[in-house]
Amino acid sequence: MADIDILVSEVGPRDGLQSIDAIMPLDAKKAWITAEAAAGVREIEVGSFVPAKLLPQLADTAEVVAHARTIPGLTVAVLVPNARGAAAAIAAGAHKITLPLSVSETHSLRNLRRTHVQVLEEAAAIGAMIAALPVAERPHFEGSLSTAFGCTLEGAIPDSQIARLAEGLMAAGCNEVGLSDTTGYADPAAVKRMIALIRGTVGDAALTGIHLHNTRGLGLANALAALDCGLTTLDSSLGGLGGCPFAPGASGNIVTEDLVFMLEAMGLRTGINIDALIAVRSILAETLVGEPLYGFIPDAGLPLGFSPAARHKEVA
Amino acid sequence: MADIDILVSEVGPRDGLQSIDAIMPLDAKKAWITAEAAAGVREIEVGSFVPAKLLPQLADTAEVVAHARTIPGLTVAVLVPNARGAAAAIAAGAHKITLPLSVSETHSLRNLRRTHVQVLEEAAAIGAMIAALPVAERPHFEGSLSTAFGCTLEGAIPDSQIARLAEGLMAAGCNEVGLSDTTGYADPAAVKRMIALIRGTVGDAALTGIHLHNTRGLGLANALAALDCGLTTLDSSLGGLGGCPFAPGASGNIVTEDLVFMLEAMGLRTGINIDALIAVRSILAETLVGEPLYGFIPDAGLPLGFSPAARHKEVA
Repeated sequence: MADIDILVSEVGPRDGLQSIDAIMPLDAKKAWITAEAAAGVREIEVGSFVPAKLLPQLADTAEVVAHARTIPGLTVAVLVPNARGAAAAIAAGAHKITLPLSVSETHSLRNLRRTHVQVLEEAAAIGAMIAALPVAERPHFEGSLSTAFGCTLEGAIPDSQIARLAEGLMAAGCNEVGLSDTTGYADPAAVKRMIALIRGTVGDAALTGIHLHNTRGLGLANALAALDCGLTTLDSSLGGLGGCPFAPGASGNIVTEDLVFMLEAMGLRTGINIDALIAVRSILAETLVGEPLYGFIPDAGLPLGFSPAARHKEVA
Repeated sequence: MADIDILVSEVGPRDGLQSIDAIMPLDAKKAWITAEAAAGVREIEVGSFVPAKLLPQLADTAEVVAHARTIPGLTVAVLVPNARGAAAAIAAGAHKITLPLSVSETHSLRNLRRTHVQVLEEAAAIGAMIAALPVAERPHFEGSLSTAFGCTLEGAIPDSQIARLAEGLMAAGCNEVGLSDTTGYADPAAVKRMIALIRGTVGDAALTGIHLHNTRGLGLANALAALDCGLTTLDSSLGGLGGCPFAPGASGNIVTEDLVFMLEAMGLRTGINIDALIAVRSILAETLVGEPLYGFIPDAGLPLGFSPAARHKEVA
């Protein structure tokens, strides 16, 4: 990250596509990923290794990973629900593997069909699998604390339970934990409080990223709170595609275009060309006909005289 | 403000209604203002004393003020473009008078048809008019620095020019200045920088409020930045109605419903009942047919177990 300040991690090809009924053709996925990487996006969660019968939209994840790996400088991330998925992800050559653990056990059972103990067992199996690999081949392993800001089924989750699960993930071999506002319940004060809780439990270095939704319109305010705390990786989705199909009423990731605009406007380098990023929306519009695309900056346009590209040149 | 932390100042009846073609009937305006005040809103900008031929939507402002003044505890605010408007506002009994001064002179000429010098002359005339009143009858007089974060016609405005105009407004007799992101160009870093600039020029006590738009989706993030700086008054509009009709492409105030949700979720007391606030939208929906209403929280609903009302009871 020497030449950027904030890593914007695009999750649309995973979180976005898993949330809609339409199945994007493999070629369109490849074009999307290629175009976003060309716009300067450094990390893309390209799919999920889940059974095709559960999420047919992501059945071609291995092929998508194979394509994404050919793009220089791109970190290819995937989601896995369990050790079997992790094995597939490793075989496909993913650079980063994220295992979600819903801190709400009710949501965990609904989402992954596993109790907390069972998910931590899967995490340990994945940790052992990775440890057995040569160092140079080990993917980065993140445990993501889903529903960290409350669950649509259980409501607020006790801090002690969240802290215990964060410790459990690290003990199982995760390189870091992430915070995920699966349900769109977060607010800026809660973001700061939860970051402090997790850091106090697993240490500052073990929490660098957050996955926020815009369900209640607070997505960018929550991102700002996370930036204030020093987090450096922010998940978002092109066109705001996605959300969580298993949490009733939850929908809408942070819009990548708007997030990048906010960051660049604040003088934080993302390495991303906003105009090129906005142009990628056409791939979604053409292949996901009828699917709403969100975002303010694509409609409103950049402020007069706004020139992050020029600023980047000065910096470089 | 002993029992609230943040004053949410509703500007929909002025900024909202001036931005749309439809003319809301006087009875509907009264019902809107009454219902929002009953929901706990403490300050409402109910109209603007501008010539009816320019803004027929607000031609009944004197009658709206007369009605709003009958609501106990409500601060009745109005916008005025000049001393003539201020005289009408004082005659009507407005509690608060805001004179906008576009820091972009091009925008000032377009919006108020006056140069900076001419607007400051109007401000001085208003200041003298208010000083001549018995102390108990003096309205609060705010000079609002419009296009403070950049102008769609001029782009960025030099700090020195903005500071000079803030000083000019205070010298003319304003009780305070306000910051207004007329064009939706602000970002959180710019908000903090501009607040520091104005405070450094006119003192901390002379800047308490900010008027933000959501044109580029950053409205609540910008509000959070203002809160971090200690500002205590935030303008917003029910349903996000409004924007600025004289700034091309600018549209969309911060949505009151979403702002109140963010504040209450953060533990900041607004005195506003969110459910009652959301119910007020029906007045807009019924009388402004076809006009889009914005906001996330009305659609997404409150998080499970979210109970600001209960918290307010504990505090009281």
